[in-house]
Amino acid sequence: MRIHNFSAGPAVLPVPVLEELRENLLELNGSGIGLMECSHRSAVFQAVIDGAMERVRRVLALPESHTVLFLQGGASMQFLMLAQNLLQGGTADYIDTGTWSAKAVKEAKRFGTVNVPYSGADSAYVSVPRDWAHSDDVVYTHYTSNNTVRGTQFQSVPSSPGLLVCDASSDVASKPMDGSRFDLLYAGAQKNLGPSGVTLVCLSERALERARSADTPTMLDYGVHAAKGSMFNTPNTLGIFVIERMLAWVEAQGLDAVGATNARKASSLYDLFDSSDFWQGCADVDSRSQMNVTWRLRDDSLTAPLVEQALSAGFSGLKGHRSVGGLRASIYNACPEASVTALVDFLKEFERTHG
Amino acid sequence: MRIHNFSAGPAVLPVPVLEELRENLLELNGSGIGLMECSHRSAVFQAVIDGAMERVRRVLALPESHTVLFLQGGASMQFLMLAQNLLQGGTADYIDTGTWSAKAVKEAKRFGTVNVPYSGADSAYVSVPRDWAHSDDVVYTHYTSNNTVRGTQFQSVPSSPGLLVCDASSDVASKPMDGSRFDLLYAGAQKNLGPSGVTLVCLSERALERARSADTPTMLDYGVHAAKGSMFNTPNTLGIFVIERMLAWVEAQGLDAVGATNARKASSLYDLFDSSDFWQGCADVDSRSQMNVTWRLRDDSLTAPLVEQALSAGFSGLKGHRSVGGLRASIYNACPEASVTALVDFLKEFERTHG
Repeated sequence: MRIHNFSAGPAVLPVPVLEELRENLLELNGSGIGLMECSHRSAVFQAVIDGAMERVRRVLALPESHTVLFLQGGASMQFLMLAQNLLQGGTADYIDTGTWSAKAVKEAKRFGTVNVPYSGADSAYVSVPRDWAHSDDVVYTHYTSNNTVRGTQFQSVPSSPGLLVCDASSDVASKPMDGSRFDLLYAGAQKNLGPSGVTLVCLSERALERARSADTPTMLDYGVHAAKGSMFNTPNTLGIFVIERMLAWVEAQGLDAVGATNARKASSLYDLFDSSDFWQGCADVDSRSQMNVTWRLRDDSLTAPLVEQALSAGFSGLKGHRSVGGLRASIYNACPEASVTALVDFLKEFERTHG
Repeated sequence: MRIHNFSAGPAVLPVPVLEELRENLLELNGSGIGLMECSHRSAVFQAVIDGAMERVRRVLALPESHTVLFLQGGASMQFLMLAQNLLQGGTADYIDTGTWSAKAVKEAKRFGTVNVPYSGADSAYVSVPRDWAHSDDVVYTHYTSNNTVRGTQFQSVPSSPGLLVCDASSDVASKPMDGSRFDLLYAGAQKNLGPSGVTLVCLSERALERARSADTPTMLDYGVHAAKGSMFNTPNTLGIFVIERMLAWVEAQGLDAVGATNARKASSLYDLFDSSDFWQGCADVDSRSQMNVTWRLRDDSLTAPLVEQALSAGFSGLKGHRSVGGLRASIYNACPEASVTALVDFLKEFERTHG
């Protein structure tokens, strides 16, 4: 029996998507060959990846001139690739909103000057900035649109005097967005898009133009992957299939509806934490994430018992990230509203018996 | 209905493995959470990856001191990683037995001196060498144990005065082997081990020791992945599950039996091609691959009709690699002996009607 899954990633997926995957494992779309067993150069798989790219374009509202890639290695590999392709001895601004931003900074320093015009380090990363002083001649500005560890999220897309680069791993496709704003948007799939092992990368024309350099190793070169339609080498074919089905599931509801549901899910938890000082939300109110809700118990000694009782009651993945403690519910696109409602009820009951 | 699948990769997988995957998609091992949906840091997934590592050790007969990693990016990413980690300005010998060796050479040149003591280029890559003159002070020797494009395969493990590095993507775990001979053995999973999107990397102690360099970007650093048990970042969890189940399937038969079956499958095709000048095997007899059987028709104008008729009769993937033409049957571990028998019968009938 499936339990309520609040894992930060890999994360819950819609049952209909899992069932479609199951149906195609032994035979993909009537081809006589299973999904994992067919050549990535076959017509039946080409239709899958073409469909996935078109759905990404529609859901993210990307201009036709943007390139959509499905790569491997997760956001961590993008920290390296983006800097190697775009920085080239120039200057970039990196907005430090926590763990993942810091990792991106580390890799970028190999390729140019990295400035950090805003860091949340001194305020325990409980908020994200609205603006900051841009560096001179900035090639690009990099930010993490949602921080899974701290539970913060940019409420709007920031500006950059150069290219705008966004790690959208944990909130991509969670609400209507204007893809034309981004020169490079990347996302490990395992939160809002599908399984781990496949990474979505979207590039504007000018980002792709800048990426052309003979110094870049072949597999790290956006230009190579773009020229080959993500098939310079064998891509994660199953992962791309799941992304296509996952975005079909999103499109069937409409991104407006998905965004509204995500807002309701998050509010029902934040409303509870605002209603009583038994609980305490971690993020500043104007930086709260709709994807990862982080909170604490006023009495921290109740945290472990809560996690334990929750697990017994069928709620998994509520422990906060090991680097910060506390509690966290990751409620990406595929997390059913019913799971959040059940969690709120459980938490209310926990407060009643322990408050 | 499933047809006979001779794809060079991604390639056919055993039906029982596909069925086990299917059964775990909605709930992994009774955990209440599906395989793609559970945290890579959960106990239920840790058991999967631990099991996969142990099976790799047993099947490849690796010493305890070797490290087993599951990475992303395929063999193409290893061309870069291995050179960046191991070469460090030194000299390496690369044995050029075709397409993949050449790609490995290209990436290595960024990191040191690359010598090619043997190249099959002048003889259309129809054979592999038994020995060659090693370069002085060679850090490592790199070879491709099986060439999927030309259908050649090393019949024994070569020697190296330095480290021995092997791209075993297309024949790993296909017959009994002595893993202690290899300092670095790597393989994209999508031929003999599982789905695309996950790469097996096995490192000896001395290879891992040499890999330590501050210059290596984090995600390309074997030392980082080794220290974190392949979980520096989120691995391809589904891919690792399938590798574990695939190697369980191999172990249930025994690697001796799997090797014997593979030898019989290949012989039944080569025997046909040797029996009549209607056909012509591409590789030299003493370099023939047991994984990718390549051949031509004496009358090349029959090639396209054969591929077409074969497809109608339920045999897929027989077209030779686009760079060389002709015909190819990829018959990795999971290709059923019955598929090969049926193919031999089909080819005999084709010869009878067109010979």
